[in-house]
Amino acid sequence: MTGDNVALSDIEIAQSATLVPVLQMAHDRLGIPAEALEPYGHYKAKIDLGWLDRHPGPLGKLILVTAISPTPAGEGKTTTTVGLGDALNRIGKRTVIALREPSLGPVFGMKGGAAGGGYAQVVPMEDINLHFTGDFNAIALAHNLLAALMDNHIHHGNALGFDLRRITWRRVMDMNDRALRHTVVSLGGAANGFPREDGFDIVVASEVMAIFCLATSRRDLKERLGNIIVGYTREQSPIRARDLQAQGAMAALLKDAIKPNLVQTLENNPAIIHGGPFANIAHGCNTVTATRAALKLGDYVVTEAGFGADLGAEKFVDIKCRKSGLRPDAVVIVATLRALKHHGGVAARDLNTPDLAALARGMANLERHVENVQKRYGLACVVSINHFTSDTQEELDLLRARMDALGVPVVVARHWADGSRGAEELAHIVVRLAESGTSNMQFVYADEDSLWDKMKAIATRVYGAADIGAEATVRAKIEKLQADGYGHYPVCVAKTQYSFSTDPKLRAAPSGHTVNVREVRLAAGAEFVVMICGDIMTMPGLPKDPASARIDVDDEGKISGLF
Amino acid sequence: MTGDNVALSDIEIAQSATLVPVLQMAHDRLGIPAEALEPYGHYKAKIDLGWLDRHPGPLGKLILVTAISPTPAGEGKTTTTVGLGDALNRIGKRTVIALREPSLGPVFGMKGGAAGGGYAQVVPMEDINLHFTGDFNAIALAHNLLAALMDNHIHHGNALGFDLRRITWRRVMDMNDRALRHTVVSLGGAANGFPREDGFDIVVASEVMAIFCLATSRRDLKERLGNIIVGYTREQSPIRARDLQAQGAMAALLKDAIKPNLVQTLENNPAIIHGGPFANIAHGCNTVTATRAALKLGDYVVTEAGFGADLGAEKFVDIKCRKSGLRPDAVVIVATLRALKHHGGVAARDLNTPDLAALARGMANLERHVENVQKRYGLACVVSINHFTSDTQEELDLLRARMDALGVPVVVARHWADGSRGAEELAHIVVRLAESGTSNMQFVYADEDSLWDKMKAIATRVYGAADIGAEATVRAKIEKLQADGYGHYPVCVAKTQYSFSTDPKLRAAPSGHTVNVREVRLAAGAEFVVMICGDIMTMPGLPKDPASARIDVDDEGKISGLF
Repeated sequence: MTGDNVALSDIEIAQSATLVPVLQMAHDRLGIPAEALEPYGHYKAKIDLGWLDRHPGPLGKLILVTAISPTPAGEGKTTTTVGLGDALNRIGKRTVIALREPSLGPVFGMKGGAAGGGYAQVVPMEDINLHFTGDFNAIALAHNLLAALMDNHIHHGNALGFDLRRITWRRVMDMNDRALRHTVVSLGGAANGFPREDGFDIVVASEVMAIFCLATSRRDLKERLGNIIVGYTREQSPIRARDLQAQGAMAALLKDAIKPNLVQTLENNPAIIHGGPFANIAHGCNTVTATRAALKLGDYVVTEAGFGADLGAEKFVDIKCRKSGLRPDAVVIVATLRALKHHGGVAARDLNTPDLAALARGMANLERHVENVQKRYGLACVVSINHFTSDTQEELDLLRARMDALGVPVVVARHWADGSRGAEELAHIVVRLAESGTSNMQFVYADEDSLWDKMKAIATRVYGAADIGAEATVRAKIEKLQADGYGHYPVCVAKTQYSFSTDPKLRAAPSGHTVNVREVRLAAGAEFVVMICGDIMTMPGLPKDPASARIDVDDEGKISGLF
Repeated sequence: MTGDNVALSDIEIAQSATLVPVLQMAHDRLGIPAEALEPYGHYKAKIDLGWLDRHPGPLGKLILVTAISPTPAGEGKTTTTVGLGDALNRIGKRTVIALREPSLGPVFGMKGGAAGGGYAQVVPMEDINLHFTGDFNAIALAHNLLAALMDNHIHHGNALGFDLRRITWRRVMDMNDRALRHTVVSLGGAANGFPREDGFDIVVASEVMAIFCLATSRRDLKERLGNIIVGYTREQSPIRARDLQAQGAMAALLKDAIKPNLVQTLENNPAIIHGGPFANIAHGCNTVTATRAALKLGDYVVTEAGFGADLGAEKFVDIKCRKSGLRPDAVVIVATLRALKHHGGVAARDLNTPDLAALARGMANLERHVENVQKRYGLACVVSINHFTSDTQEELDLLRARMDALGVPVVVARHWADGSRGAEELAHIVVRLAESGTSNMQFVYADEDSLWDKMKAIATRVYGAADIGAEATVRAKIEKLQADGYGHYPVCVAKTQYSFSTDPKLRAAPSGHTVNVREVRLAAGAEFVVMICGDIMTMPGLPKDPASARIDVDDEGKISGLF
């Protein structure tokens, strides 16, 4: 964030850190015995689920880190999560960080790694950003096994009666590969099956990933995997993974992946990193298993949800918390003055120039998110400004004044440059909020609301829309899902993260718009209904000059060029 | 093998074994300090390459396990490798087993696992058969990154001038998925690239796998990855991975995979399992890194090569040994009386019925392999018969008499049922052969022979063919490779493993046939020229009733149904 007065790159900072062996850290800091851990190298370990089940608790306080509507650069949720976790430990609270695992594909594109940055990172960052402990590979193979079993079943006689035009299960790869978005498979003659349209999504978009993150036990995982709908018959009856006897082998492929991964921050504080579903067509939070484990092990847990508070935090509340019983005690909303000026209409090249008027306009975005967190989700919150050297006192004063009006504390955080010291004030405020007991989480809609009404509640109460709409075919599909008994499922909205509306160019806090539901998909294993509003990409591409060209490894195995 | 008097399945035997923690085994048995190991759980570890480089040796004796032309069930090379390793340890020789890693795809098809069987297994067998330490996943992603970078380059302007009709780099997945054999990619409009024909191979067929197995260092690995030819221009100039700046990121993805994996046998003896290229379009042996590591750590090393001695052992000698300087001290040729009767013309259902006449005819297959090992490769050998209860004394007497005439000892091995005790006699004979110094390895052809002459030497000297042939276009392609400077590369023959000929139905020891070279491919990174003779499948399919339906995991994470 500050950037200009720090000479070292993220990977250089990460590689210069002194790490504590993970078994020692787990024992000394969390009381986890060595026999409850499976080391993956010296600095990564998986925690045994049986030991966690037997571990009594009590449960710690849960802090959710979310953000304003982001710019493409991101506003620093992960660094804030890490920095806050380190700062809470610094002020004497035994705190565990619970993060999502990074996806590999974007590492070679533009985004780079996703293990924090500056002096707020989780390490070993190379491992976390590359294959880590193999979870995503296991998820990819479980997904692709189901696809192979389906096409194999069709090839060998199609006894279940798949309609080749109504297959819904695609394939996945953890790579940004636009060539795989739309494909035709099974070409080459009778030995290779029946040609049909297909395509690949990136692994984080797999329903197996969503299931993995929501499952509460191995049994629940297998049950949900069996429920996946892979296609339909000509009569439009669903065919499930269970009908292909796939769920046992899929769960077997996930036998180790399901165990949460323990690593550490640069300051040697514990971090659990596990699962990482897309925040658009899925719910965008780490696993329930990991969050629960962290709550048993720490007095405080800091976790994050994807994108802005309209998407990630809404799904955290309405999907993850609803299904798991988790309840956050406080929320941190991350913002930058640069992004607020962007929402006020400033062009990218001018974001470092002070502009009080633009900031005042852009503040509407932050205010809407604050209001949502307070009034829609019922949660106490603090605004944390990731500091840039171009920020001015006048701008900060304006921000504070507007937040004072809402009764929300504001803190400038400097963990990126200063580590835990830079987030100490934030930590104190978070403790005060969490221990005040003022949070009383509420859902945006009730289970018994219809799917249409759930979507409408999210759009009108959270997005500021006037109404929702859909073409007749989409409406009919939603009605069919309702009639078929899926009406009690939560709704998972897939829309742009850049705006409260479905138009990524509408900045700040648009109101009165109509949210158009373009497509609806049933995730029968994950147990939610995806409402797609606008264009959603489930397989990213690489840029003209991919980051891969800068990534290298030397003769001793040391990685460079990851950022 | 014996089967009928053993009540437990392979996985039940494996799960009832008492394992020694891998760090302890590595220390006590091989003198490897904990800091030179990266544990993956408690029973798998990767060995640090730097420590291995500094470890002086001396090098142990190298024993190669190969086989007759197999039946589809396989004759038990892996169980013999494990049983012999255990037996050598039993008679006081510090022995390390060096195996290939199993491919995941076939686990869900018919073949099941590939970690030995009965009382001759490597463990933990579930882990070894599923994701193990993630090596194959890393290889798949390195391969697919290169594919994504290539299509991305074409999409963004194709400055290198790829001819879309002349792209040679496909994609890979570790799954038996016939639907992916022939595909069309980049469909869906301008945002998704230029539509073209493509397809997937199974990971073990990737050139990255072959390179991984032949590389002698991280530097050599990266150099070879850069040399991969991914396609050609309209002018038929090669375009390499290096031109896409891909080799650094690919090598980074392989940074941990390149370290050999240490596990143990059921009898707690050390086994290094690393790499696993196809034995048809690649060379079919574990990594040079692993074999060298094992030779530094053990007085004896037992390793295997894929398929029969015409394919796996020939490539072991002419590719792996030629390139690495390794030299075997003795060879074990595995056979079963059942398979020899098959070569004598007996139908599958009658293989348990004694039939001396058929055995006498089928012996020709074993004799040709023995002759090849002795005279073509210059290596001392012993024939090891994997015992079945249906075997009769008269059949064994016939076999011994025919082998006596060639001066080759024969031993009946019962490691499948009895573990090391069952292979003790084999172990004594192997020690005698290895210490006799009679092996003096020679290549089938010289580096300076032309590609055509190399292929002819293999066909006439090893396969018993009269000559080789090829259509004019294939001949022209071979001549072009010769002219382009690849003539000094070894030849890697892809043909059926079931016959010395290219017709899988021609059993025993056909002679005087012509081997037709149907296709030729340059593996510029692996540094060999693949000559494809007959139909070769690089992406297997699943059977009508896949093994996956029987695989399951219980609430505690225990796997069942793997065999």
